[in-house]
Amino acid sequence: MADETADRPPARRPGGRSARVREQILAATAELVARDGIAGFRYEEVAEFAGVHKTSVYRNWPDREELVVEALLRYAEDLASIADTGDIHRDLVDFLLALARGLETPFGRALEQAVQPARQRSTVQAVTRILDQRVAALRRRVDTAVERGELPPVDGSFLGEMISGPAHLIVNRGMRSFTRTDAERIVAVVLAGIRATAPHA
Amino acid sequence: MADETADRPPARRPGGRSARVREQILAATAELVARDGIAGFRYEEVAEFAGVHKTSVYRNWPDREELVVEALLRYAEDLASIADTGDIHRDLVDFLLALARGLETPFGRALEQAVQPARQRSTVQAVTRILDQRVAALRRRVDTAVERGELPPVDGSFLGEMISGPAHLIVNRGMRSFTRTDAERIVAVVLAGIRATAPHA
Repeated sequence: MADETADRPPARRPGGRSARVREQILAATAELVARDGIAGFRYEEVAEFAGVHKTSVYRNWPDREELVVEALLRYAEDLASIADTGDIHRDLVDFLLALARGLETPFGRALEQAVQPARQRSTVQAVTRILDQRVAALRRRVDTAVERGELPPVDGSFLGEMISGPAHLIVNRGMRSFTRTDAERIVAVVLAGIRATAPHA
Repeated sequence: MADETADRPPARRPGGRSARVREQILAATAELVARDGIAGFRYEEVAEFAGVHKTSVYRNWPDREELVVEALLRYAEDLASIADTGDIHRDLVDFLLALARGLETPFGRALEQAVQPARQRSTVQAVTRILDQRVAALRRRVDTAVERGELPPVDGSFLGEMISGPAHLIVNRGMRSFTRTDAERIVAVVLAGIRATAPHA
């Protein structure tokens, strides 16, 4: 470590190299999962795609499940994020548009297909964790809106299903592309419906 | 035909037998599509399952596409039907429950999976026709409700996506079973939202 002084670029440090290797492995895994599905990818191929030795993959992720989970979580951040601009309508519209764009990628399609026929496989837990993460992010945002009086008390998971259900249907059917107009009118109907059906305090 | 007199049971007539053969072929096709998917089934297997000669299948349906379409349409009637009791809320709730039950069958799962990865295959048209049929039935029911003044003017396809999207999501994720409570609150929020967001006439 003595030769690792400040005049070397930080990216050349051993820690940096190891981080880059992990990064390459996660990117390769995500790409292979998108191509072959969760059950289909192999460590040999991950190593080849990542340009690293197979032992690097095994050393960093002895557990296949953990590798899948980490790769998926890493590349599904777009699907899980939701902003807080103070306007719940606007934030839900942006969330829906990001969701639809995410579902339209090869990775999103792989995720969708992985959930359905694989319900009995243990690797489906990875996908479930991503979906849970997304639901949790949305629920927190909805809770904030409720606290601020923007919305009546509402079950955030239910609200999430109400707005993302139609988006999943439209994108997965591939009947038409999902537009901002779709997002706007879905959110408008759901928020108005939740306000109109709230029990009067 | 001279021996086919009124004292024979009608089911024994040649027309009846031929109708039964067609019926058996359609049932076998639907079962095989549910098991192997739209692209996977073979005429040989259909004949074997139906207990008829392979030439009967070819003679009745020279076109594979037509066989699939007819078998699917025949067994997807539950998914497409919607009652008119005069109460749009109640009819939509029943429609949603029937939809969810349909999606939960092996046949429903095959239909769902057929739509997704098969978008480029021509056989996907069969599934699309079923879905179109369902959308058309729902749209007619919604139009009637609009004419009666139960609902403000609304795009029936949009309303269909709004109520069936969450049902598809809940059933296909398999996170929980879809209940009457789910159906009731989805329909309540969507109808209230559509009424609240309608432009004032």
